[in-house]
Amino acid sequence: MSHASHLADLPTPALILDTERLDRNLDRLARRMDGFGITLRPHMKTAKSIDVARRAFRNGPGPITVSTLAEADYFAAHGFVDMTYAVGIAPHTAARAARLRRDGVDIKVLLDTVAQAQILGKAGRAAGVSPSAFIEIDCDGHRGGLRVDDPKLLDVASAMKVAGVTLAGVLTHAGESYALDTPQALEAAAENERAVAVDAATRLRAAGHDCPIVSVGSTPTAHFAQALDGVTEMRAGVYMFFDLVMHGVGVCSTSDLALSVLATVIGAKPEKGWIMIDAGWMALSRDRGTAAQRVDQGYGLVCDLQGRLYPDLVVVGASQEHGTLAIRSGSNATLPDLPVGARVRILPNHACATGSQHERYHVVAGPDGSVTAEWPRIRGW
Amino acid sequence: MSHASHLADLPTPALILDTERLDRNLDRLARRMDGFGITLRPHMKTAKSIDVARRAFRNGPGPITVSTLAEADYFAAHGFVDMTYAVGIAPHTAARAARLRRDGVDIKVLLDTVAQAQILGKAGRAAGVSPSAFIEIDCDGHRGGLRVDDPKLLDVASAMKVAGVTLAGVLTHAGESYALDTPQALEAAAENERAVAVDAATRLRAAGHDCPIVSVGSTPTAHFAQALDGVTEMRAGVYMFFDLVMHGVGVCSTSDLALSVLATVIGAKPEKGWIMIDAGWMALSRDRGTAAQRVDQGYGLVCDLQGRLYPDLVVVGASQEHGTLAIRSGSNATLPDLPVGARVRILPNHACATGSQHERYHVVAGPDGSVTAEWPRIRGW
Repeated sequence: MSHASHLADLPTPALILDTERLDRNLDRLARRMDGFGITLRPHMKTAKSIDVARRAFRNGPGPITVSTLAEADYFAAHGFVDMTYAVGIAPHTAARAARLRRDGVDIKVLLDTVAQAQILGKAGRAAGVSPSAFIEIDCDGHRGGLRVDDPKLLDVASAMKVAGVTLAGVLTHAGESYALDTPQALEAAAENERAVAVDAATRLRAAGHDCPIVSVGSTPTAHFAQALDGVTEMRAGVYMFFDLVMHGVGVCSTSDLALSVLATVIGAKPEKGWIMIDAGWMALSRDRGTAAQRVDQGYGLVCDLQGRLYPDLVVVGASQEHGTLAIRSGSNATLPDLPVGARVRILPNHACATGSQHERYHVVAGPDGSVTAEWPRIRGW
Repeated sequence: MSHASHLADLPTPALILDTERLDRNLDRLARRMDGFGITLRPHMKTAKSIDVARRAFRNGPGPITVSTLAEADYFAAHGFVDMTYAVGIAPHTAARAARLRRDGVDIKVLLDTVAQAQILGKAGRAAGVSPSAFIEIDCDGHRGGLRVDDPKLLDVASAMKVAGVTLAGVLTHAGESYALDTPQALEAAAENERAVAVDAATRLRAAGHDCPIVSVGSTPTAHFAQALDGVTEMRAGVYMFFDLVMHGVGVCSTSDLALSVLATVIGAKPEKGWIMIDAGWMALSRDRGTAAQRVDQGYGLVCDLQGRLYPDLVVVGASQEHGTLAIRSGSNATLPDLPVGARVRILPNHACATGSQHERYHVVAGPDGSVTAEWPRIRGW
């Protein structure tokens, strides 16, 4: 892989990470959680990069969340051994997580059924370790987890004890907060997430179970929580980079977006008002998360090489290796003059999805456009 | 990477390719094009696999289409040297394509502007080769290309001559055919694609330009064309695997779909009628191509390990590593009993997008479920 010195010379499409913005975003949430006296356990599912993890923890490895056991292996190999695997456990992942624990990784897993407690206990016995798991709590009907008043909550905790699985605590995720876009609604979602998690912990403790960790988190609620009493840790991932979905939710401005896709103009259709670029959905991802928001950003917004937005210029269409730029419908902005070979940067809808389409970050610091490093990303399971 | 012997034992999520279905799909279009006396130039953007390319060409390397120069490098290294790079050329790709040509690869590229002809000529001179390019023709307003009556068509051909670029021929792609779903409309789209391409070639020849190749193609039009007079070659890619979008268009049945994603059940929400699996959009892709069709298939349809569909069971939601299964709204089918650890196979909306989320195929042949091989996929640009 050649190491070009400037965005103007890099082969395209290419994933660009601006560390000025990254550092600002990392600091913002770290300070916020420091203010609450809460542990921040960043979710590495967005960045999937040891270099980004090191940027988040400048004084050495800290607590992280992972979305795959491939991430677990990778971060553990780089010294990040305090981790939560935040996807419900299955037989094959239980066995693999138990082996990681045997190898010295403090991996905590997730479950919400008696069956999973038994599966995990069996995997622990096979590996000669005592597994540790969170019970997943459902705070907003978004996905998995037990409701706080579900009688199964205590059944699962008891089954864990019988199976030899340590209760790490309770974990919930306010996934529905992504659908909100007012400070009031986001503050209420954060308070609900907090209250439900604390209630679940209280119920478990009242039944005699230790429940040391009360873990909540989503990027929107992490930034809008007004109180976190009873919570011990916060998880968030996309806050490192932000994206247009988070902008639509109201968590960030477009100038906070640390991730972009560098692209080259490959043609035009003047009669349709189109400019064609070499970044299609393979480079941008198929994510259309802003389609359900008040402002639909197509497949992304278009900036110049310095990261300045072209007014109302949107990626209105994407096929595999082609993107189509046009002025947003209803706008009276004019199409910029971008001949074949001109370069643009696309701000993505969803940083997790766009990042996953690429093997590495090309690192810049601010608008100057010099590429200072290449940081690999990991993938797979 | 461990090599499991059966789908029941494979780590999940995992990409599964059924070679019985693959071979049937490959044979179907190969025979159809043989019947027309037309060269089939498969688009490798879907499979991105030398093993699949060899399956398409059992008697040695044949003509292919590629969507990236990473594919060009890869297939050339495996002896497939007759290729068309079907994305408009830019300065950095022109230079790289010229170097490939210098190294003995018969790569033909794509352009539709005088500027690109000049860029390509310059790149050819720098590499000491004579580049070869198609002029892209727009047959249905889908994306790039010149309309057949555009005066620039002859300007571009003349500019190519001046720049020392050989005219390989004309190339068009009926991309709008993906939005159709009746045989009549598809036959008309195929005839339009043919007629426009032949008209463009005729116009160029009348102006004194050699125009040896008349290249058309899309999976829907390739299967519905009733006549291909004047066409010399057909391009298609997704036909190898098919997918739910192609099923919605009417090109295949669900039993033709050669690609699926193996997943494990990780939980349930009985009160909502949900089953949770460990395949989210990271494994399935964010593609929601069937959302615009008559039947919206969510993020995919659910099969058992043998590939038999569960009636009306759909992936109704997907987050990064979680999928949610539920019975299709309005159906009176019942949710199957799928406990934690049970395995399913998901038929994807869009084979190109789902494939790109994975590093390799786990190869099976028919419903028996024995995994006979792992075939790598390539990615990047």
